[in-house]
Amino acid sequence: MNKLNDAKLEVLDCTIRDGGLTNKSDFPIDTVRAVYRAACEAGIDYIELGYRNSKKIFSTEEYGPWRFCEENTLRKTVNSIEKRNTKISIMQDAHKAEAEDIIPKSESVVDLIRIATYVKDIDKAVRLANNASEKGYMCSINIMAISRETTKDIEYTLKKIESETSVEMVYIVDSFGALYPEDVNRLFDMYKKHLTNKKIGVHFHNNQQLAFANSIEVIRLGIDCIDGTLYGLGRGAGNCPIELLIGYLRSERYDLLPLLEVIEEKILKLRENIDWGYHIPYMLSGILNKHPKDACDWLSSSNKYKIIEFYKNIMGN
Amino acid sequence: MNKLNDAKLEVLDCTIRDGGLTNKSDFPIDTVRAVYRAACEAGIDYIELGYRNSKKIFSTEEYGPWRFCEENTLRKTVNSIEKRNTKISIMQDAHKAEAEDIIPKSESVVDLIRIATYVKDIDKAVRLANNASEKGYMCSINIMAISRETTKDIEYTLKKIESETSVEMVYIVDSFGALYPEDVNRLFDMYKKHLTNKKIGVHFHNNQQLAFANSIEVIRLGIDCIDGTLYGLGRGAGNCPIELLIGYLRSERYDLLPLLEVIEEKILKLRENIDWGYHIPYMLSGILNKHPKDACDWLSSSNKYKIIEFYKNIMGN
Repeated sequence: MNKLNDAKLEVLDCTIRDGGLTNKSDFPIDTVRAVYRAACEAGIDYIELGYRNSKKIFSTEEYGPWRFCEENTLRKTVNSIEKRNTKISIMQDAHKAEAEDIIPKSESVVDLIRIATYVKDIDKAVRLANNASEKGYMCSINIMAISRETTKDIEYTLKKIESETSVEMVYIVDSFGALYPEDVNRLFDMYKKHLTNKKIGVHFHNNQQLAFANSIEVIRLGIDCIDGTLYGLGRGAGNCPIELLIGYLRSERYDLLPLLEVIEEKILKLRENIDWGYHIPYMLSGILNKHPKDACDWLSSSNKYKIIEFYKNIMGN
Repeated sequence: MNKLNDAKLEVLDCTIRDGGLTNKSDFPIDTVRAVYRAACEAGIDYIELGYRNSKKIFSTEEYGPWRFCEENTLRKTVNSIEKRNTKISIMQDAHKAEAEDIIPKSESVVDLIRIATYVKDIDKAVRLANNASEKGYMCSINIMAISRETTKDIEYTLKKIESETSVEMVYIVDSFGALYPEDVNRLFDMYKKHLTNKKIGVHFHNNQQLAFANSIEVIRLGIDCIDGTLYGLGRGAGNCPIELLIGYLRSERYDLLPLLEVIEEKILKLRENIDWGYHIPYMLSGILNKHPKDACDWLSSSNKYKIIEFYKNIMGN
């Protein structure tokens, strides 16, 4: 029943990092600790605890600690919890983060730094990635909003990453939840063609209920790393529910129960304030290949259920 | 952008029929009329308005009119609405319906009769199918809970349908939401091998958020007919959301807007009383290949959010 073709596939939980886009990264520390503990117990390969973005761009008054992931915060988070085989990740946005915020690996609990970038910011991403690599971390570059980029620009970006960095992983990021399995297939081939000795990862959004399905598609193709979040928590329609992924893999390397426990204890309660998941405005953003921001704003307003008005707006009528 | 390889793919809306499993088929007639009108305006190929099951088995006190779909009820439902190219379907359960409840096609607004059956009831299904065919209707046999059947039993059933009926369509029904794309692929091949001159249809449940993805998988393979429901309304986790399917197809044959309109006007309101969609107990039923009944009961109880207790029960601890 084990669906892993080989032992190389890795799973990354980014519940706190991507979920932090729904609440300005302002989780109670006991929620983050519970999620961390569950990931360690479940055997998840990486857990991403938030962003290390710049305090010059994000106000510490407005944003919670997981937008900055200071070393002290991280140490308090993981304190006294057995890490097992789970590696700790943080993310830097290429256009919102600074190299000097990264301390040497020898002084940090962090293992992996992921640089999220739009194609237009690839120069900044390369600088931040090289900074992280030089300071001793594993590193990835995650190309966001890839459904909007031309083949030419994606190829240019991949060649640049290949020749100018020593990152271990490069990600396909479907920020808009616009990709169908056949699109993912095509992108995977493009990545494979231009990257040597680098792992390929995927981060899917669930606007069209395809985050898990697209994950299955790339497992068939031989992907190296898949992102998921508990109960799909994440911006807009959310992400690939990690419990579905672990359920599918049927691998002895992973244990579903700790994930279900923390969903019951911590994640379901978040639904009282955060309404992630399937909604028509998110679906339309996905189909039309647009940023989910307008849909998020619409769903936070009193117009939430006026889906025809949203449809007319997004179609430009 | 059109994803239809050819003109043959057809879409069937079974919002009222499968949704009727959540509310004992007790919809207000104006809801059913609105759904019917939307399907006609959107160009949906078939709309299934309910079951024609036996009053000896279902009490008319307890169940609403769409469990019986009497000819008078159907005529009132479709009265004065332009039918365009949309054909009308009703379903009979092989073990809960009777041949004499079917009147001749010449006296009915119904075009298609679908016989839903478990493998064990295939003899009854064949009798009901031949009854419908003889009375002048298009007919299908829909093999339910197919994820639980052995290859040998499925092949026996397909051969029986091939040799003893003249039905136009045979369906793969994933009643438990247990099938992954690779399973669907295998079943499609089996159907193709044993059926000649019969269309193949699919009906997916969304326990693992794969109903739409499995639909994409069979579109790639060349499926003939796909079931969907508005906003995924249906028993348990629900069905393939028809708006996702139509959005994906990008075909001039279909119009998304009438579907979104009726979702806004009628379907979203149903969520006040019916909580279909993604829930961990439904997910676990799907992964474990079990009937959703226990999960439905659990979610209707005060234990709704005690997912670990459900997990332990379903795992037999």
